[in-house]
This record gives sequence, C-alpha cells and structure tokens, in this order.
Amino acid sequence: MSAPNRATLYARVLVDELVKAGVSTVCVAPGSRSTPLTVAADAHPDLTVFSHLDERAASFFALGRAKRAGDPVALVCTSGTAAANFHPAVIEANQARVPLVALTADRPPELRDSGANQTIDQEKLYGDAVRYYADLSEPAVEDRTLRSARVRVDRAVTAATGTHPGPVHLNVPFAKPLEPTAVPDDSPHAVPEGWEDAHELAARGRDGSFVTTTPGRMALDDATLADLAAVIEEAERGLLVAGPTDRDYAPELVALATASGFPILADPLSGLRYGPHAADVPVYGGYDGYLAERVTADWPDPDVVLRVGASPTSKPLRRYLARTGTRQFVVDPAGEWREATFRAADLVTAEPGRLAVDLAERLDAESTDADWPASTFERAERVHEAEVDATDERFEGAIARRVVADAPDPATLFVSNSMPVRDVDRFGAPRTAALTVLGNRGASGIDGITSSALGAESATDDPLVLLTGDLAYYHDLTGLLALARCGVDATIVLVNNDGGGIFHMLPIEAFDPPFEGQFKTPHGLNFAPTADLYGFDYVRADGHDDFAEAYRASLDSDGTQVIEVASDAERSHRTREAIRERVVAHLEE
Amino acid sequence: MSAPNRATLYARVLVDELVKAGVSTVCVAPGSRSTPLTVAADAHPDLTVFSHLDERAASFFALGRAKRAGDPVALVCTSGTAAANFHPAVIEANQARVPLVALTADRPPELRDSGANQTIDQEKLYGDAVRYYADLSEPAVEDRTLRSARVRVDRAVTAATGTHPGPVHLNVPFAKPLEPTAVPDDSPHAVPEGWEDAHELAARGRDGSFVTTTPGRMALDDATLADLAAVIEEAERGLLVAGPTDRDYAPELVALATASGFPILADPLSGLRYGPHAADVPVYGGYDGYLAERVTADWPDPDVVLRVGASPTSKPLRRYLARTGTRQFVVDPAGEWREATFRAADLVTAEPGRLAVDLAERLDAESTDADWPASTFERAERVHEAEVDATDERFEGAIARRVVADAPDPATLFVSNSMPVRDVDRFGAPRTAALTVLGNRGASGIDGITSSALGAESATDDPLVLLTGDLAYYHDLTGLLALARCGVDATIVLVNNDGGGIFHMLPIEAFDPPFEGQFKTPHGLNFAPTADLYGFDYVRADGHDDFAEAYRASLDSDGTQVIEVASDAERSHRTREAIRERVVAHLEE
Repeated sequence: MSAPNRATLYARVLVDELVKAGVSTVCVAPGSRSTPLTVAADAHPDLTVFSHLDERAASFFALGRAKRAGDPVALVCTSGTAAANFHPAVIEANQARVPLVALTADRPPELRDSGANQTIDQEKLYGDAVRYYADLSEPAVEDRTLRSARVRVDRAVTAATGTHPGPVHLNVPFAKPLEPTAVPDDSPHAVPEGWEDAHELAARGRDGSFVTTTPGRMALDDATLADLAAVIEEAERGLLVAGPTDRDYAPELVALATASGFPILADPLSGLRYGPHAADVPVYGGYDGYLAERVTADWPDPDVVLRVGASPTSKPLRRYLARTGTRQFVVDPAGEWREATFRAADLVTAEPGRLAVDLAERLDAESTDADWPASTFERAERVHEAEVDATDERFEGAIARRVVADAPDPATLFVSNSMPVRDVDRFGAPRTAALTVLGNRGASGIDGITSSALGAESATDDPLVLLTGDLAYYHDLTGLLALARCGVDATIVLVNNDGGGIFHMLPIEAFDPPFEGQFKTPHGLNFAPTADLYGFDYVRADGHDDFAEAYRASLDSDGTQVIEVASDAERSHRTREAIRERVVAHLEE
Repeated sequence: MSAPNRATLYARVLVDELVKAGVSTVCVAPGSRSTPLTVAADAHPDLTVFSHLDERAASFFALGRAKRAGDPVALVCTSGTAAANFHPAVIEANQARVPLVALTADRPPELRDSGANQTIDQEKLYGDAVRYYADLSEPAVEDRTLRSARVRVDRAVTAATGTHPGPVHLNVPFAKPLEPTAVPDDSPHAVPEGWEDAHELAARGRDGSFVTTTPGRMALDDATLADLAAVIEEAERGLLVAGPTDRDYAPELVALATASGFPILADPLSGLRYGPHAADVPVYGGYDGYLAERVTADWPDPDVVLRVGASPTSKPLRRYLARTGTRQFVVDPAGEWREATFRAADLVTAEPGRLAVDLAERLDAESTDADWPASTFERAERVHEAEVDATDERFEGAIARRVVADAPDPATLFVSNSMPVRDVDRFGAPRTAALTVLGNRGASGIDGITSSALGAESATDDPLVLLTGDLAYYHDLTGLLALARCGVDATIVLVNNDGGGIFHMLPIEAFDPPFEGQFKTPHGLNFAPTADLYGFDYVRADGHDDFAEAYRASLDSDGTQVIEVASDAERSHRTREAIRERVVAHLEE
C-alpha cells in the first residue's frame, strides 16, 4: 500500500484495519480536518458510507444501525464541537451496550491549546462513557507507527464488541496536507534498507485483522452451574424476567423456559416478547397493566427469579419483584449490578445465552406448582386483554396496541421514550411474528430517536415502523434528512399530544403554574411542513379507525409516510388509569 | 424561607442564590428529575425563564444571550443525555469565554450506576471545559448544607464571570418527591434548638449574595508599564491587532490608538470594527483581501505589534504577522497563549482595557513614520474597496457586504462560521454605526448558530440580523422554535449554496470523487417549508438588487423574515479569488 502522503497512507491504514476488524459501515459528517479519513472511507470498496450533516443525527443513526445489526459502526467527524455532538449517542451506546467506533479528527498536538482555529481539547472527550480511548500518534510512515495504528484499531473494535460492548473513541491527529496531494518527501517507502518487507506488511496489513482476537465468554464452572440448576429445580414457582438486552438470547432463554417450566415476563425490548417461540412457552407482556399490590398480595410469591438484561421498563414489574422478597439472580455478562431496588442478592456474571443452555441441559424437573402461573399471570393477562378490548375510547395506548398488532412479520419496530415505550410495554401484547422491537432505553433520552430508527432500518431488509411522540420528533428534526440521503423508508407513527404528555403521569400535574408553562409546554407545532421539507407523504389520522386504515395503507406502500395522530395526553392518561383500575378491581375480586 | 419539602427548599435556595449572585436569565428544558429547579426558577420574580425543548438549542440560546449581555446565563436540564446535549455549547463557551452556569439534575448517589432509569455518569461530564465543577450534596435542611449550597453557587458564578470567564457545572442530585408536595417530616425548621436564627439565614440568604466576591483585575505594575510604554514610544511604526473578544474594550483601545498613533486592524468580532470611534482613529477591516506576500514584501515591517483578543479570523493577517518577524505582545487577561504561529515571544497577562488606559496615560509621543500606514494599509484599503465596488458579479461576498452596510444603527449582527464570518471579515467595511457583530468563533462550529443568534437578540432591544448558510441553518433547525417561544424577532439572511461551500476553498476540491459526495455534499433542501413549520415570513431573493430590497423591507418590518439567497459556491469562490488577485496585482505595481 503506497500513498501520495503520510496522512493519506495513515488514514488508509486505519480504515483498512477497521474493515478487517469487522466494521462494514461508517457514518461520516463532512469536515476539513477529517479529510484523510473521509477520503479513505469513501474509497474503500467494502465499506458502506453514510453522509450526515448533523453529527448528533449521524451518531444516533450509527447507534440504531449497530443496535439492529449487532455489528460495530464507525463514526467520523472533524475537530471541534462536531465531536461533542456525538456525546449523547456515545452515552446511550455506553448504557445500552452498543458497539460504536468514534474517530474524531484532531489538530496535531503542537497546535492544541494554542488558539488555533477549531481546536478544542478532545482528549478523553467522552470521559468514562467509552470502553477504550486512544489519542493516536501523528501520521508517519514508520513501520512501528503503522503497526501501532493497526493494533489500536483492532483493540478498539475488540473492546467495542466484547463481553461489555459499547462505544470506543480514537482521536486522530492530522497535519496538512489533508487531501491526497503528492508530497514526494513523504514517501511511505522511505524506510531503512532491509525493512521493506516488514514495512510493507504494516502498510498493507494482513489478510484478516492485524491481531486476531479470540474473545472468551463469561461462563460458570460445572459445580456452580450445578448449584444454580439445583436452586431452579427445587423451586416450585419460578420466573424468568427478560429486560432490555443488546443481544438476542431468545433461543437459549426459550430452551431454559422449556426445561424449567418458568414463564417469561418479557420486556418489549428483550427480544423475547415477539417471535415464533411465543406459541411454545408462556410469554407474558401485559404485566405493566395489572401488577398492583392489591392484585399480587394474595399471590404466592415465586421461589426464585432469574433476571436477564437491563432493568425492565415496567415500574409495576420492578416494584412487584422488590415486594416479593424472592431470591433474585441477576445475570449479566459484564458483571454490572443493574438492579436499582437493591433487593437482589445474587449476581451471576455469565453470558446469558450460554448460561441458559448450560442450565437447561442440567435440569430434569420442571417447577411443580402447576396452578402457578395459571392462576396468577395467565389469568391476569386475560383480564387485562379483555378490558383493553372492551375499551372503545380513543387513547394513545390503543394506537400503540394497533401499531404492534398490525406490524408486518418480520418488521423492525422502533419505539420512542417517554410514553410510546410504556404504551407498547403495557398494550403491545405478545405475538408470534418476528418483530424486532428497539428503543433507546440505555439513558432513555428523547434525543436522536428518529435517527436511531432510520439507522436500524438501514441494517436489514425488514420494514421499519417508528412509534414516536411530538417532542422526540421535534428534537431530532434534522434526523429526517437520512430518509433521502441514506436511502431509508419508514412508516412513522407520530402521536402528537402537543407537549410533554408524560408529565400528566407525574405529581407535578397538580401544580399549575408551573405545570402548563414549564412541564407540559405545548408548542402548537403542526408538523405537516416537515413532509414538504424532506419530501415524504404525510397523513393526519383522525380517530382510531382512521389511523388503522392509514397505518395499513402505509405498510402496503413504498416510500415514507408520517401518520400524525392528534392526541389529548391528559385524556389518554385517564383512560390508561381507568383500564388499569378496572383490571385491578376485577383481579381483586 | 420555608418549603413543603427538602428538595423544594434546596432548589429555592439554589435559585435564590443564583439570582443574588447576578444571574437574571435561565434556559430550562423540561424534564422530571429537574422539577425542583424548574419550579423554583418559574416562581422567582426576578428571573426570566426561557423554555426550550431541545437542550442543544437551549444551551446555544443561553450562550448567545450571555455573549451579547455580558452576564451569566443559567441552564437547567434533567438527568441523562439531556445534559450531554449541552456539551457543544459548553465547549464553545469555554473557548469563547462566555459565562454559562449549567445545572444538571441527577439521581441521588445511591441510585447511580445501579441500572436505574435515565441515570448516567454525570460527574465531570464536561471534563476540562468548565471553570468550576461541583457535585452538590443531596437536598437537606441542615444549616451547613444550605450554607454550602449558597457558597457553591456564588463560587460557580464568580468562576464563570472572573478573569477567565466561561462555563461552570453544578450537578444537583434530587430524590423524590420532586414536586412541592408537603412532606411533614421534611420540615426545614426541624433544626437543633438555638440554631433557628443561623438556620433561617442559610435558608433565606442575605440581601445580596451570600459571599460577596471582590474580583481583582490582572494589571501590570508601574515599572513594567513604563517599560512597555517605552517600547511603544520608541516604535516608529506600530499596529494594534484586535481579534475576537468576549468583552468590549473599544473605548480603552481607541484611547491607546489615539495616544500611540497605531492603527487598528479590527476583526469583525473584536468590537472595534464598527462604532462611532471609526471616524476618529484609523480602523482597517479589508486586510483579508490584500495582505498577500506579494503586497507586503515591499512594506516596511511594523516595529511592534500589540495583540488583543483571540487569534484573528483572517488567515492572511495571521500569516502577515508571522512573516514580519516583528516583536508581538499578546495581551490576555487569563494568561493563555493564544498565538498558534508561535512567533510571538511576549505574553502580557493583563486586562486589556485597563492596560490600554494605563499605557495611553503614559505615552507622550506618537509613532513617527507618518507615511506609514498611509502608504500601506490606508492605500490598500482604498484599492480593495474600489475593486469590490467595481465588481458587479453576484457572489456571496457582495451579500455579506450589503448585510453589513445596510444594517441598522444600532443592531446585533450574528454571523455563522464557515463562509459568512470570512465574507464579513473581508467585505464588511468599517462603519461608524453601533453594530455588535457576534459569532461562535471559539470552536468555530456550525452547530447552534441560529439559537445563539436568537439568544443574542433576546438580550437587548437592538434588532437582530443573522447571516448564515444552509448547513448551519439545517444543523440548528430546532433552534427556530425560539422565535415563537422566546418572543424573538430576526432578519435571517440565508445564503443557500446547497452544501459545504467552504470546501471549494480547500485543496480537496481537486479530488472528485470524493469531493462532491463527501465534502460538498449537496442536500437539495428547499427551506421554504420551515416558514410554515415555525410561522414566519419567507422571501426568496434572486440577484443582488432583489436581495437588497428584501433586506431593507425586512429591516423595516416587525416579526421574522428569512431571506433565502441561492448561491453558487464555486462561482462565489472564483469571484473572491478574482477580486483579490486584482487587488494584489494593483498593489504590486
């Protein structure tokens, strides 16, 4: 590999190694200092390059794509505040364990903190939110420099995709010339005699990654597995609680559910609520609507709970688990202690999929209380479903329910934070369809939702449905440009309740002022012009039937449709409350 | 001061002290965890509260307002990625020395790193970009806790507004209840007997700030001043170079220019290019158009250069100063070394205004080479102006020139990065009108430009003109909501050259691909629908006369008008080059 100058060579080496290490996509925001990286990325035949104009949108697009694909996605930006615009997505990637490789171009060290233009302190810009950080050396043609660059890229990608996946940050200094202008004195072949071969290897790289990494998986030894299997076997009543995960553990956890007889309480973001397995093992999804103390007070507690993934979205579920006093095993491959009620006393550091299989193989007795969960969860689910069915009021929960029920098989369904994810959690009943439901539940921000969804769409051939709210839609207004620029289509269901509907759920509702002016904060925006701006179809749906029709029509169409459903947040909240009260009252009888 | 519960009391104390310490404005983004701060801010009679829905836009709005007002502006957001969305503006505030007080609500320490929802690591979130950081104690009613809270607020505001102004960060943990619900056991008056008075003081605060700070100013002693004055007096030829500043030093620097006979090379962001003083002392502004080596090779070098502010926007000026080899005094109140050519060997740590006055008082001889600058800068300015006058081509520089020439007196003119600031630098000739020209030149990002401009507008009664480009306008699309929400009016001149026009100035232009796809990156956006979305007037101007008419009409109207001028970036670039070539050729003769 030769190149017209050292910056070009160095960037080619970095990009070449990124691809060899497993990166197949890069999101680039245009800029000058990053020119060598952008040129190298653009020229690489095996790299898909998406160009974004807002770095915040770029980074969330990358996040969504990495999340859906399960593969690392790289980000490239120029020096300065551009890099800081990646910060929210880097934090979400940290919390949600999504592999992102951020490459931020920087001035060479000699120009830092000198008043040079567009030069900020980019060292450790993302603090502890990244798994790996390196300030790379300046471009040079020396063998060791190029080897170091390749090894660091491999190391960064390995860190991003390891037992504890997440974002990594490579800060890359470049001096001019940044473009592939010939600089004769810069020849990459000006190496000491006899070193040509070694140097050529460093410049060209190996066939695969420069360093082959053999990642281990966290696994328990046989004795410990036997102990844990015994606990499960001895339990008359057990529960598998699947919270939001960054990987698909469905086959393994279904095997464990089958072997143990434990039902699965499946968060919509767990990968377990939807899929063919829902026909074979008991998967419950309505618990957010009935797990009240008045209901569970008479239930026999489970003897053991096995928890996988992050903390469940449902607060009633978290409270139920905290109330029971049951022994809870929290399984986490990274050994994090993700249990914020501090009731769990057992942490299992193991890869959940492998653990589930290992346990399933060792079990030969199902839980013995056959009446449980039939008399508890099973019955409650039916009552909950019946009450929801009987509700003909127009409310946001019904929209969410319809979105899930009518989503194509397969499909990617991205749900925004605040109310959409909660409504899907409560009203999006399990299906056997292959729905991949995603959300940004790591930090639960409303930033970058549209971009994340469009990034997820770009990763597969599945159609995308995005269920979002007006605040999230507004917040990520620039993200819609990806529809045209990145060749993405979507069905976007925009529930517009003109402000912060979630605040109706919170006690601050009773204090007005400042409720209306500072919390609900109606904006009065009519989003139809966004369709003219970005060039997609826009439908305003009035009422539930109207919505159902528009939704089906969009799913049957090409291109992108935004279906706006005007909603009264307060009334929706009252309806949710009323349904829950009826369910709870019924179950109390 | 009493309160229904400890969180409410604590937040009231913090907000009360913020106001007493000199904060009169807060930009709030709605959220739940920040409820106590939002409620307290909303209830404070002496605080102007702006509500924003996008934290990035909120923070740039605050930046613009603080920049224009010269006063600190506070920011409030909830926990999670919301806080990370402040990061770009915090970095710009750091680089440009703008006082921002970011208050980020957080979970109490017991919930951090526990998997609790919307809980991220907010400790030192902005790294070294802030002047002061504190993770405040949890709300409590104890005397010492409240005193500590007040002292920390005073300290934060003092740090934000000191010799080296900039952003500060207070991370504030809150446990529930967050709203002003009565919690009887939480009474703020449950203090040990005999302590009531002291406690009451801590809760109520003093009449002014809890701790009165008496800030010193960096100043030189008499002997050093005499030495410096002698250097100036001995110079036959001297220059004052005014770069972008965070404060207005115009009166003092004009006094120094008068006493020394030194002309001023005034950056558009220096506060010195525009104002009544331009009639009294020589202020040059066209140097970006003629300071070529071919021109200055025959000029006598100045004997001494006094530099104030950040590095000038003009690269030809920076190169000229580097070429001369002249002794350069870089004056900086914070003692930073803002001189990236590393030619200056003299750093003066002194407050520029005071230093200028101190020096002016000590001078009793003007520079003696009367022909200089008449034969150099004076003549070059005239040639430059004449060539620009003679150019009837339609190009971006002519738009910038018209924007400056016709701006009302007084007015705030905000200029975007990339080409607008460069065009104003080269073509925005000095005027005696009171134009306050602002830009985000700290990190020179194109993020947050609209928001910063609207924030600046909110600070005074001066009309606002924003000169921006399509990329900056797109990047900060959410920022336009402030027009309606914050009661701001503007004349927005949007030069739309469909992508990154600045890249035509860079050598990468010669490499296509990837030039068009990855650098110029045309987006094809027609921005007229943004007027429907946000509710303002939209005019598309064709040609220069059409623009001039629309511009004048907007300046004469109420409300907000966006005037879009379609531009061919490449042709504009060629025109700039051609004018410069004619100027340089003329001056070479």
